[in-house]
Amino acid sequence: MRQAGRYLPEYREIRARGADFLDVCLSPDLAVEITLQPIRRYGFDGAIVFSDILIVPHALGQKVWFVEGTGPRLEPLRRIEDLDRLSQGGMAEALAPVYETLRRLRRELPPEVTLIGFAGAPWTVASYMVEGGTSKDYALAKTWAYRAPAEFSRLIDLLVGATADYLIAQVEAGAEALQLFDSWAGVWPEAELRRWCLEPAKEIVRRVKTVYPDVPIIVFPRGAGLMYEAFAQEVGADALSLDTTMPLVWAREHLQGKVALQGNLDPLLLVAGGEAQRQATRAILDALASGPFVFNLGHGITPPTPPDHVSALVEQVRSWRPGS
Amino acid sequence: MRQAGRYLPEYREIRARGADFLDVCLSPDLAVEITLQPIRRYGFDGAIVFSDILIVPHALGQKVWFVEGTGPRLEPLRRIEDLDRLSQGGMAEALAPVYETLRRLRRELPPEVTLIGFAGAPWTVASYMVEGGTSKDYALAKTWAYRAPAEFSRLIDLLVGATADYLIAQVEAGAEALQLFDSWAGVWPEAELRRWCLEPAKEIVRRVKTVYPDVPIIVFPRGAGLMYEAFAQEVGADALSLDTTMPLVWAREHLQGKVALQGNLDPLLLVAGGEAQRQATRAILDALASGPFVFNLGHGITPPTPPDHVSALVEQVRSWRPGS
Repeated sequence: MRQAGRYLPEYREIRARGADFLDVCLSPDLAVEITLQPIRRYGFDGAIVFSDILIVPHALGQKVWFVEGTGPRLEPLRRIEDLDRLSQGGMAEALAPVYETLRRLRRELPPEVTLIGFAGAPWTVASYMVEGGTSKDYALAKTWAYRAPAEFSRLIDLLVGATADYLIAQVEAGAEALQLFDSWAGVWPEAELRRWCLEPAKEIVRRVKTVYPDVPIIVFPRGAGLMYEAFAQEVGADALSLDTTMPLVWAREHLQGKVALQGNLDPLLLVAGGEAQRQATRAILDALASGPFVFNLGHGITPPTPPDHVSALVEQVRSWRPGS
Repeated sequence: MRQAGRYLPEYREIRARGADFLDVCLSPDLAVEITLQPIRRYGFDGAIVFSDILIVPHALGQKVWFVEGTGPRLEPLRRIEDLDRLSQGGMAEALAPVYETLRRLRRELPPEVTLIGFAGAPWTVASYMVEGGTSKDYALAKTWAYRAPAEFSRLIDLLVGATADYLIAQVEAGAEALQLFDSWAGVWPEAELRRWCLEPAKEIVRRVKTVYPDVPIIVFPRGAGLMYEAFAQEVGADALSLDTTMPLVWAREHLQGKVALQGNLDPLLLVAGGEAQRQATRAILDALASGPFVFNLGHGITPPTPPDHVSALVEQVRSWRPGS
């Protein structure tokens, strides 16, 4: 999950210099520094490269910009002809700064800290590309997919290819593990979740594993609920990220025998802190930490999080012992 | 689910006269007419009274208004002292127009059409009351609940009482079935889903059933995923509404033996129409219609829905036969 961000004064200081968010992601000096900030402060076991899932549409030629306070904006794709504006031709050049960031991070991070690369999953990225930004109900993207699945497939297939290439290139540049974020997976009925989320994730994992069979891949089908089991059985990922709603005992019994798990503290518990944060953290560790498990949040850290609450969390997780 | 709305020209005509949305809900002449519009046009088996879940905060004394295009706004509750501004004392008077609407509807509806009353569930209503409107991540309401559960309980308990009284009064006024909408249930970890959604629903059902044991109650824990099973086992409702993400075969096997089911066509399929709508409707009927079942959408109908698509849906549902 996102580790750096506006909850850290050292991050706000960099952002206050005024560079556009996308420019920050594409400036190795800044992206390296921001990636290292939470590692210096907290000594996490893994560092996730500072970037954004909308780097891929940008690299495919779509206009992407960020409006402070309201989030990302994109020149939307609304008709099949709009897809002709996209091309993988310029991807390597557009994404070169991310690879440079990864190469530098690999040199600068302590060797025991795993460097994690990531990408957005095709459906989540496609939803931004079609809607032109965040959306309440994804009406335009979903209606397009329902009405003209063959057209929508063209977009998803393009993203499957681009995303697999991007993840492979991140490993070449030094990423030691990969995460695929399907943040908006939880809006589909079962059949479409399979078609637009599960199958694309499976194909991306297959392509990456063909080149790098030993690099762990973590898939995050946020909001997939009952369908997490199908992801565990069918996608071929090494691990699944659990969102905050996933019941812990069910996850242990139905998923942890098949894949490693990662999760799932509610980021708002890290805002609340205190006893609520401690109890929930303890419940997660007691339920899942005896199997293959990476403690994490259930979604990205939010700006109002007091940095001290993160320190308390790290201390509690590091000192946990079974039955303690 | 919401049956009337901006997808109907006859509704848009009434709204174009310019009355505030809340005034429309509280004007029996208009609310009766709007409730009857979709019944006249489509001949549904049930009619849900035209109203809004934020009628209850309004009746408790919170300032509520609607901004065209952006949704509801409320003078937010942010500290425990803000709850002192709320009182059940004025509820009966404030809600009298809703009861008048129900009495008239009972007379005007064909006797074979079931009149359905409804309310928002405490958590969903509380989220609006605290946030002051719709919210992306419910950060203020959730953080309050995490940080000071005893304070948040005061708000939820107040809403449990007010909502039970309101539903009971709707039956007195002519409602023949009741629905409780927990539209934002899907944002909680398991423990908090139990505390803020499941337990309040159970207590409301208990109170209503004490007075009216034979009036069917439908509970809609939207987004509860795996926790639907606990709702089926523990809440005491007669039926559960399924959201659009719920896998059909799982729902049949794990829920339908315990409660009747209602659902769950994606409202955006009704926008798309055509083959996608037909296939998904057929899949729902084939999976669920042989058990206790009410065909419905998985969430409210949306403004861009072409009215003809609803006609096609009604025809398909009415003509479905097992194995056909």
